[in-house]
Amino acid sequence: MSGPEQQDEVRTPVGLWLVGARGSVATTTFTGAIGVAGGLAPPTGLVTMQPPLTGVGLPPLESFALGGHDVVETPLAVRAARLVDGGALPVGLPEAVGDRLSEVEAELRPGITWQEARTDPRRAVDRVAGDLAGFRERHGLEHLVVVNLASTEPPAASHPSHLDPEALNRALSGRLAVLPPSSLYALAAIEAGCAFVDFTPSAGARLPALVQLAERNSLPLAGSDGKTGETLIKTTLAPAFRSRALRVRSWSATNILGGADGEALSDPERARSKLQSKGRCLEEILGYAVESPVAIENVRDLGEWKTAWDHIAFEGFLGVRMRMQFTWEGCDSALAAPLVLDLARLMTLALERGEGGELAELAFFFKDPVGTDVHSLERQYARLCEWAAQEIAV
Amino acid sequence: MSGPEQQDEVRTPVGLWLVGARGSVATTTFTGAIGVAGGLAPPTGLVTMQPPLTGVGLPPLESFALGGHDVVETPLAVRAARLVDGGALPVGLPEAVGDRLSEVEAELRPGITWQEARTDPRRAVDRVAGDLAGFRERHGLEHLVVVNLASTEPPAASHPSHLDPEALNRALSGRLAVLPPSSLYALAAIEAGCAFVDFTPSAGARLPALVQLAERNSLPLAGSDGKTGETLIKTTLAPAFRSRALRVRSWSATNILGGADGEALSDPERARSKLQSKGRCLEEILGYAVESPVAIENVRDLGEWKTAWDHIAFEGFLGVRMRMQFTWEGCDSALAAPLVLDLARLMTLALERGEGGELAELAFFFKDPVGTDVHSLERQYARLCEWAAQEIAV
Amino acid sequence: MSGPEQQDEVRTPVGLWLVGARGSVATTTFTGAIGVAGGLAPPTGLVTMQPPLTGVGLPPLESFALGGHDVVETPLAVRAARLVDGGALPVGLPEAVGDRLSEVEAELRPGITWQEARTDPRRAVDRVAGDLAGFRERHGLEHLVVVNLASTEPPAASHPSHLDPEALNRALSGRLAVLPPSSLYALAAIEAGCAFVDFTPSAGARLPALVQLAERNSLPLAGSDGKTGETLIKTTLAPAFRSRALRVRSWSATNILGGADGEALSDPERARSKLQSKGRCLEEILGYAVESPVAIENVRDLGEWKTAWDHIAFEGFLGVRMRMQFTWEGCDSALAAPLVLDLARLMTLALERGEGGELAELAFFFKDPVGTDVHSLERQYARLCEWAAQEIAV
Amino acid sequence: MSGPEQQDEVRTPVGLWLVGARGSVATTTFTGAIGVAGGLAPPTGLVTMQPPLTGVGLPPLESFALGGHDVVETPLAVRAARLVDGGALPVGLPEAVGDRLSEVEAELRPGITWQEARTDPRRAVDRVAGDLAGFRERHGLEHLVVVNLASTEPPAASHPSHLDPEALNRALSGRLAVLPPSSLYALAAIEAGCAFVDFTPSAGARLPALVQLAERNSLPLAGSDGKTGETLIKTTLAPAFRSRALRVRSWSATNILGGADGEALSDPERARSKLQSKGRCLEEILGYAVESPVAIENVRDLGEWKTAWDHIAFEGFLGVRMRMQFTWEGCDSALAAPLVLDLARLMTLALERGEGGELAELAFFFKDPVGTDVHSLERQYARLCEWAAQEIAV
Repeated sequence: MSGPEQQDEVRTPVGLWLVGARGSVATTTFTGAIGVAGGLAPPTGLVTMQPPLTGVGLPPLESFALGGHDVVETPLAVRAARLVDGGALPVGLPEAVGDRLSEVEAELRPGITWQEARTDPRRAVDRVAGDLAGFRERHGLEHLVVVNLASTEPPAASHPSHLDPEALNRALSGRLAVLPPSSLYALAAIEAGCAFVDFTPSAGARLPALVQLAERNSLPLAGSDGKTGETLIKTTLAPAFRSRALRVRSWSATNILGGADGEALSDPERARSKLQSKGRCLEEILGYAVESPVAIENVRDLGEWKTAWDHIAFEGFLGVRMRMQFTWEGCDSALAAPLVLDLARLMTLALERGEGGELAELAFFFKDPVGTDVHSLERQYARLCEWAAQEIAV
Repeated sequence: MSGPEQQDEVRTPVGLWLVGARGSVATTTFTGAIGVAGGLAPPTGLVTMQPPLTGVGLPPLESFALGGHDVVETPLAVRAARLVDGGALPVGLPEAVGDRLSEVEAELRPGITWQEARTDPRRAVDRVAGDLAGFRERHGLEHLVVVNLASTEPPAASHPSHLDPEALNRALSGRLAVLPPSSLYALAAIEAGCAFVDFTPSAGARLPALVQLAERNSLPLAGSDGKTGETLIKTTLAPAFRSRALRVRSWSATNILGGADGEALSDPERARSKLQSKGRCLEEILGYAVESPVAIENVRDLGEWKTAWDHIAFEGFLGVRMRMQFTWEGCDSALAAPLVLDLARLMTLALERGEGGELAELAFFFKDPVGTDVHSLERQYARLCEWAAQEIAV
Repeated sequence: MSGPEQQDEVRTPVGLWLVGARGSVATTTFTGAIGVAGGLAPPTGLVTMQPPLTGVGLPPLESFALGGHDVVETPLAVRAARLVDGGALPVGLPEAVGDRLSEVEAELRPGITWQEARTDPRRAVDRVAGDLAGFRERHGLEHLVVVNLASTEPPAASHPSHLDPEALNRALSGRLAVLPPSSLYALAAIEAGCAFVDFTPSAGARLPALVQLAERNSLPLAGSDGKTGETLIKTTLAPAFRSRALRVRSWSATNILGGADGEALSDPERARSKLQSKGRCLEEILGYAVESPVAIENVRDLGEWKTAWDHIAFEGFLGVRMRMQFTWEGCDSALAAPLVLDLARLMTLALERGEGGELAELAFFFKDPVGTDVHSLERQYARLCEWAAQEIAV
Repeated sequence: MSGPEQQDEVRTPVGLWLVGARGSVATTTFTGAIGVAGGLAPPTGLVTMQPPLTGVGLPPLESFALGGHDVVETPLAVRAARLVDGGALPVGLPEAVGDRLSEVEAELRPGITWQEARTDPRRAVDRVAGDLAGFRERHGLEHLVVVNLASTEPPAASHPSHLDPEALNRALSGRLAVLPPSSLYALAAIEAGCAFVDFTPSAGARLPALVQLAERNSLPLAGSDGKTGETLIKTTLAPAFRSRALRVRSWSATNILGGADGEALSDPERARSKLQSKGRCLEEILGYAVESPVAIENVRDLGEWKTAWDHIAFEGFLGVRMRMQFTWEGCDSALAAPLVLDLARLMTLALERGEGGELAELAFFFKDPVGTDVHSLERQYARLCEWAAQEIAV
C-alpha cells in the first residue's frame, strides 16, 4: 500500500499482519488504514496522529503493507458491507477503497484451527512463519508487526514446557497439544522475526518460553487485551477516587454486547479469560480490594455495539455514602481499529530501536498490560509519550 | 482545639477561619475536623491524610483553632442537626462533639452584609481584620488560614481601583462600593496577615490589587470554586478523550441541587458566576472548542444532595458517533468539607514556607484555578504532590 | 397517491395537508406515508395499523392525497437527504419514493408569515382556505385533515375577540393582529370544511371562538402538542407511582435536542409554550403538586435527536427515600411522523361520523390534550380504542 | 394488636402470619404495621389506603394480630436495628413500637428446615398447622392470612403426587420428600383454614393438588413473587411500547442487590426460579418474542438496596433505531412490606367473601401472577379495583 501522498521521501517498507483478518476489528483496520492514508477520513481515534506523538517520526500509514490469517473465508468486502449496515463503517467508504481492499484480500491466508493446534502444532507454526516470510519477501519489508485479533480463547491450561523454549520446541515437535492457536501464532511471529501484539486476552505470547525467545531475538511483545470501553473509563475514573481519598465500596459493571465478541463471551469459559483481564485494574489503582462484579451479556441485537453500565458506590467524609453511574455506548470495532494501527506504528519503532521482550511502555492500550501494574490511563499515556520521544540508545 | 492525641510533641498552634461559618459546608467542616481529630471518624475524603501527602509534615487537624464569620445566626448545633436529618452528617456525631462545637460557636462573629459593603466598606474590613487579630491573639496562633464558603455572589462589576492597591484603599476610605463582601474579606485577611482561599466562584482575592498586596506581604492565595462534583468528573474524563484522540462533539451537563446552593443559583445572576467557572475546563483539556451547555436547576427536595447528569457525544475512527452518559449523586457538603481541611493544612505549609501570591499548585481543588490553565485532575494531583514534597528553599 | 395495492375496492379519496410541510416531521411523514403505502417499509410506529385499531375500517394510507404550506422553500428532496445524513430516514428511501415525493412537492404552497398575520390576517385566511379548496377539488377529496407541524410560537396574547366568532371576524376584517399564524391556519381549515389538528403547543384552534365555529360546522379539532418523548414516558410511569401509593417528591427533567426544534426552543418565549404544555400532566395523574422543573437545552450537534433525562425522587413505606432515573434517546421526527398519519386516519373517521368540536378521545397523542385532563397513557389508549370501535350513532 | 384508635366500632379480629418472619421484609412489615396503625407514620406505599380502595371496607391495620415462622432466631429488635443502620427503617421507629414488637416476637415459632422437609414432611405440616390454630385461638381470629416471605427456593422437581391431593397426602405420610418447605407451609395454611399468599417465586401453593385443596375448602390463594422493582417498571413501560407500535428489539436488564436476597440469588439454582419469574411478562405484553437477558449480581455492599439498570433498544417509524435506559434504586424491604399488608387486607376480604382457589384479580402485586397472563400494571390495577369494589354475590 503506497498511498497518494505528497511526501516523496523514500519510505522504508513495513508491514502489518492481522490474525483474525476477516473479523470486524481487522476489516475496520484495513478499510480505515487505506481510507485515512488516502485522505478519505480524518485520523480521529489515532493516538499516534496527534501531538506529541506526531513528532516522534513514526512510519506513516501509507508505508504499511497489509495482510493476515483467518480460519473463515468471508470476503473482506462482504464483512465491510455488513459493518456499514450496522453503522460501524461509513456509507461508501468500502467502495471507495475497494481496489486496495482487494489487494489486501489477496494477502490473506488460512489460519490455524483448534484441530490443527491439537494434532500438528509444529507444522502449523511452520506454515504461518512461512506465510509471514513470503509476505515480507513479496513486499521487501524491513519490519513486520503481527497483531492477534482472533476470538478470545478459553484460559490455556498450563504445561511445564511453557517455561522453557527448548522444552516447548520438543513438545511441539512431539505433536503435544500444549499451546492454543494464539500462542502458535506468537511463536511463528517470533521465529519469522516479527513483533507480536496480543489485542485479545488469549494466552498469545504470555508464556515464559515465548518471552525468552523474544528477548533472545530482540523482538518486542505487547499486550494484552485492548482497552477500548468499560475498562478504559474505569482506569480513567478510579484514579480520581484515589486522589480525592473517596473510598470506593463497590464497583458493579455490566456489559451488553453482540457481534462475534458477544457470541464468544456467552461461552462461560471464554468469558473467564475476559473477566480475569478486566478485574485486575481497580485494586491496583485504589490500593485496596473492592467488591467489583463484572457481568457480560450477549445481546445479538446490538451487533458491533457495546453498552457498559457501571454503578460505583463510594463513601466520602464522615462515611456519607454516594453514588456514580455511567453508561458507555461504543462501537467496538471503531474503538479498537485505530489502536491497532497505533500499535503497528509504535511496534515498528520498537523494532527499529531493537527493543526486545515485553514492552511495558505500551500499557496505555491494554486492559491487562504486560510488564507493569500501572493501570491509570493518564499515567500510562505519560509513560507512552515519554518512551516514544526518547532517543535511541546507541 | 487540642484533641486527645497520643503524640506529646509540642505543636505550633494554627487556625482555620471560615467565612459563611454557619452554612452546610462550614458546619460539616467544623464537626468533621473535631470528629476526625478525636478519632470518631476515619479520614475518608481528606486528600492530605493519605500517601504521599502524609509524608510532608503538614500540621495535624488537632492543632487547628476554629472560628468564623457569618451574616446569619442559626446556631451550629441546629445546622448540624438539620444536616443529620438530610443524611449529610452521621447520626450521633454532632452530639459526640458537642462540647467542642460550643467552643467554635463562641468564636463566630457577625459577617459583612451587602448593606455594609456598600455603605462603609473600610469599616467592614477593619472590623473583620480585628476579629481575625483577636482570634490569633486568644489562641496564640502562628498562622491563620481564612476560607470563603459564603453563598456565591453575582459577578462583580469591574472598577479601576481593582488594579492598584493604593487606589483601592482610597476608594474604600471614600466609602465607594467597589468591592463585594467576598473581596472585603480577602482584603481583611491579607491585612491581618492571613492566607486566603476562595472556595466559591465569587470575586474574593481575584483582583490585581489584592494579588499585589498578597505578594508584597508574602501571603498565599488559593482558589477558586471548589471542584467537588460534575467538574471533578469532567476534568477526569476529558483527558481520556484527549489522549485517545476521540473527538468530543458535544458535552451537555445538567445539575439538579437543593439547599442554600440550589437557592442561590436559581438567581440567574449568581448562576452566571458558577457557569463561567464551570465552562473553562473542557476547551483547555481537549484543545478545541466544544458545544457544552450547562444547566443548573434548583430542586428544593434534594437538600444538600446534588445530582449531575452529563451526556457526551463523541466521534471515533472514521467518524462513527458514540455516546457516554454519567450521573453523579453526591452530598455537596460532605465532598467540600474535607477539601477545606486539606486547604487549611496546605496553606499553612505555604505560610511556613513564605510563599506569597496566587498558588497555582493547588489547582487540584478548584474548578477555576488561579495562576494556571491546567484542568486535568491527574496532572493537577501530580503537581500538588510535587509541590508539597519539595524542600523549602532557604 | 394511489399505491400499488391489491385491494381493488373503490376508495373514497381523502387528503392530508401539513402546515410546516418542509420541516423534518412533515418530510418524514410524506416519505414514510408513501414508503409504507408502497410496501417499502413496515408500519412500525403506526398505532392505527395494529390491533385493535386495524379492525375499525380506517382509510388506508394509499387513499390520502398529500400537500401542505410552508414559509420556507427548501425542496422536500433536499430535506429528506439531510434526514438520511442524520440517521432519521433510512438510506435509499427518499430516492425510492422520489417520483411521488415530487408530486407532493407540486402541492406545497407558501405559508402565512408573521408579517402577513399582523398586517392582513383576513387575506391570509382567505388565501389558505383557497389553497385547501383547490387541493380538494383537484383530487376530488371527500374529507381533508389539516395538521399543524410548524415551529412552536410564543404564547399568544389574549384578546376579547377570541371569545366570539363574530367579534373575531370583525377584528380580522379590521386588520387587527389578534391571531398568530397557527390560529389563522385553524380558522382557514374550518372555513374550508376541514378537520384541524394541532401537533404543536401553539394556540392553533384552542380559542373559544374557533371551537364554537368548529362545533357549528361539525368539524373535529384535536390537539395539542404531540406526545412523543419525555412526556410519553412521564405519563406512562407516573400512573405506576400513583397506583403503588409511592409519593413522588420531585421529578426533574432535562431535554437536550438540536434541529429546528432545539433552535426554536432556545428562545425563552417559545420555550415557555412548551414548558407549560409539558408541566400539566404530573399533578393530574398523581393527585398532588410536585416540584417538577423541566430544562430544555439546544445542542445543535444532536440534530433531529433528542435525549431526555429524568430524575425522580420518591418516598416509599415509612418515608424511605428512593430514586429512579431514565434517559430516552429518540429521533423526534421518526416518533412524530407516524402519529401524524394515525391522526389523519382517525380525524377522517371523525369527519365521516360528523363529530364536531374538540375530540377528547384523541388525548393519547398529545401532551396537553383538549377536552380532558386524563394524562395516563394507558387510560388514554383504552379510551381511544373504545371511541374508534364504537358504531356511529344514527 | 389493637391500636390507640378513635373508632370504637367493634372490629372482627383477623390475623397476619408471615413465613420468614425474621427477614427484612417481615421485620419491616411488622414494624410498619404497628407504626402506621399507631399514627407514627403515613400510609405511603399502602395501595389499599388510598382511593378507590379506601372505600371498600377492608379491615384496618389495627385489627390484625401478627405472628410468624422462621428457621433463624435473630430477635426482631436486632433485625430492626440493622435495617435502621442500612437506611431501610427510620431512626427511632423500632424503639417507638418496641412494646408491640415484643408481643409479635412472642408469637414467632420455629420454621420448617430443608432437613425436616426431607425427613418428616407430614409432621412439619402438622406442627405448622398447629401453630396457626393456636394463634387463631389465642387471639380469637375470624380469618387468618399466611404470607410466604422466606428465601427463594431452587425450582422444585415435579412429582406425580403434585397432581392430586390424595396422592400428595399419601406421599407425605410415607415420608417422601416431594415438597419444598414453601409448599409444606401452603398445605399447612390450607389445612388450618387460612388464606395463603406466595410473595416469592418458590413453588408454594402452585401445585395442582394444593390448588384443588384450596378450592374445595373455599380458601383463596395469591401469588407469586412480589413485583417491587425492575419488573414493576417493565410492566409499566412495556405497554407504552405496545400501544405506540414501537418495536422492542432487545430489553437487557441487570439487577445488583445485596442482603439475604442477593446472597440467595448468587446461587444459580435459586436465581433460576427468579429469572423464570421475571422473564414471562414482556412477551405477553408486547405480543412477540424479544431478546431479553436478565442478569442478577450479588453486591453485598448494597445491603437491602437494589439497583436495576435496563437498556431497551427499539425501532420506530421506517426502522429508525432508538434507545431508552432506566435505573431504579429501591429499598427492597420498604417496597415489599406495604404490599404484604395490602395483601393481608385484600385476602381477608376474599375470605369474607368465600372466594376459593387462585385469585387472578390480585395480579397487580406479582411478577408471575396466578390464574392470568395479564402483566400490564395499569390493567392489573383496574382489575384489582373493580374486584375489590364488587358486591359479594349472595
